[in-house]
Amino acid sequence: MSAPNPGLIFDTFMMYQRTAALKAGIELELFTEIARGSHTAEAIAKGVGASERGTRILCDFLTIMGFLSKSGDEYSNGLEASLFLDKNAHAYFGSVARFLLDPRLIAPFADLTQVVRDGRTTLPEEGTVSNDNPIWVEFAEAMAPMQFMASQEIAGILGGEGEQTVLDIAAGHGLFGIAMAQRNPRARVTALDWADVLEVATGNAKKMGVADRHTALAGDAFTLEYGGPYDVVLVTNFFHHFDIPACEGLIRKIHASLKPGGTCATLDFVPNDDRVSPPASASFAMVMLGTTASGDAYTLKQYDAMFSKAGFASSVAHTLEKSPGTLIVSTKA
Amino acid sequence: MSAPNPGLIFDTFMMYQRTAALKAGIELELFTEIARGSHTAEAIAKGVGASERGTRILCDFLTIMGFLSKSGDEYSNGLEASLFLDKNAHAYFGSVARFLLDPRLIAPFADLTQVVRDGRTTLPEEGTVSNDNPIWVEFAEAMAPMQFMASQEIAGILGGEGEQTVLDIAAGHGLFGIAMAQRNPRARVTALDWADVLEVATGNAKKMGVADRHTALAGDAFTLEYGGPYDVVLVTNFFHHFDIPACEGLIRKIHASLKPGGTCATLDFVPNDDRVSPPASASFAMVMLGTTASGDAYTLKQYDAMFSKAGFASSVAHTLEKSPGTLIVSTKA
Repeated sequence: MSAPNPGLIFDTFMMYQRTAALKAGIELELFTEIARGSHTAEAIAKGVGASERGTRILCDFLTIMGFLSKSGDEYSNGLEASLFLDKNAHAYFGSVARFLLDPRLIAPFADLTQVVRDGRTTLPEEGTVSNDNPIWVEFAEAMAPMQFMASQEIAGILGGEGEQTVLDIAAGHGLFGIAMAQRNPRARVTALDWADVLEVATGNAKKMGVADRHTALAGDAFTLEYGGPYDVVLVTNFFHHFDIPACEGLIRKIHASLKPGGTCATLDFVPNDDRVSPPASASFAMVMLGTTASGDAYTLKQYDAMFSKAGFASSVAHTLEKSPGTLIVSTKA
Repeated sequence: MSAPNPGLIFDTFMMYQRTAALKAGIELELFTEIARGSHTAEAIAKGVGASERGTRILCDFLTIMGFLSKSGDEYSNGLEASLFLDKNAHAYFGSVARFLLDPRLIAPFADLTQVVRDGRTTLPEEGTVSNDNPIWVEFAEAMAPMQFMASQEIAGILGGEGEQTVLDIAAGHGLFGIAMAQRNPRARVTALDWADVLEVATGNAKKMGVADRHTALAGDAFTLEYGGPYDVVLVTNFFHHFDIPACEGLIRKIHASLKPGGTCATLDFVPNDDRVSPPASASFAMVMLGTTASGDAYTLKQYDAMFSKAGFASSVAHTLEKSPGTLIVSTKA
């Protein structure tokens, strides 16, 4: 076809089927079955308990998408599928789909037109950040594989030796605080989240051998007394859910809970000033439009202004290798 | 990030948002408003009657996707958006979204896992091809812009001079038969479809100046008497809804309705024998898995076998320039 043609438009109309196909492949454990040695549509279908017609068409589609390769009638896992989609692989990533594609999170995108009209999620109240939303238990359970590497990287950047007190706000799975405790044997971590979410973090702290230096603090980050003072406050993937005045209020609370010279470490999706690059960070604003009343992806300039206003001396950004996020380290004078 | 990384997996999880964003942009007539001269999020929001937060985030997202460009705070339509997404553009393509993204068609993809297990659509009965499904009125009204160029191209390939009788099976919008009538002033077209769909085809025949040589034949292509004999039978985007035995039955009926030397012209998504290329044709099997009980995208080899079995002498394939489809011309001995 000669350019220009409506190819990108047509492809985009059909992209939702790619999300659906990858989700189905994971739910059926199709990649796991292939890793186990089934290669024809017939054998894979039998192994996963699905129809041959459905399995053949799904495998062909996953081949077109780049997750499988096909030779004759036989399918094999591509590199990413082997590493991240086979349930028995060390870095299995399938549980992430459970959270990211939770029907509650996806629902507003079925009528994004209405969301854009209203300027807020079609979910009730504050959307996903409403009090005690059970989706965060799902998050804590499902998202750990995606953030394990980043938690190690961040603990390395923040460092710290000797006595160190860490407050992990909206801890979720708890990995970011746990990584601090693992790296520094004298670090003590207080994990703050809703009570039912904290059960996940506490479980992870036990599994990862730092339960004796890991304390749960249940409640609402906006109203709870933090205790302290702390050397480090971690705020990972949290600010984006709220508008700037709410973030500023939270930052003032954090500032008050830190020792002089203490640091607030923010992990978040931080687009450039143009707000359309880099793609992974800039796209995240759409997730916040769909699922919250007033969240956003804030630029470094915006974070810097918020932290300055609350009395922080300086904010330094670190691009991460293991995550599309940016780490912003803000120091209290 | 160093390879391999789960980037493609993460991107695929989020692709459904791209479909949603393009649909919202079309429904809000955002591209039309930009073409009218609004360029900031504030002005566009005001023009389309939407929130500024929603409009800004949607415009940024559409920029990341390649449909808009951004300079400072100002958005402009990219080339494809100007040509195909501005409602006042000659080749406006937005109505296509209405059919392709009809909630009835999309519903099965919300649980594709179940579809793959069952080997058939989760829609009742035969899915979209159940008798008199109102979705085909939507199809006939919405899809014409996408197939206008292909209809001209196909009429050119099929040619014909002098008296020519044409049967247009599952005519839908009727464009394929109408193009034959426009090209040959002595061609007479019989358009077959459900009665309510035929109203759309008849309307188009009127608009396009061939109403006097365009007859409606209402009913089910599998059971209706075709009349004839015909010089040409058109079967455009129809076989893919059915399994091979059903297609073979239909082809026998077509064979019987043709004059000796007459041709059946099939337009369809025809993948290569590997069934994973070219992407646009091969991907279409997934649409059939999601929305029908037993449809598929058939290869040229499969079509050739079906037409031979019904007594056709030869089948010749033509790759189209204006459509991802393939035209197969089968000649009765």
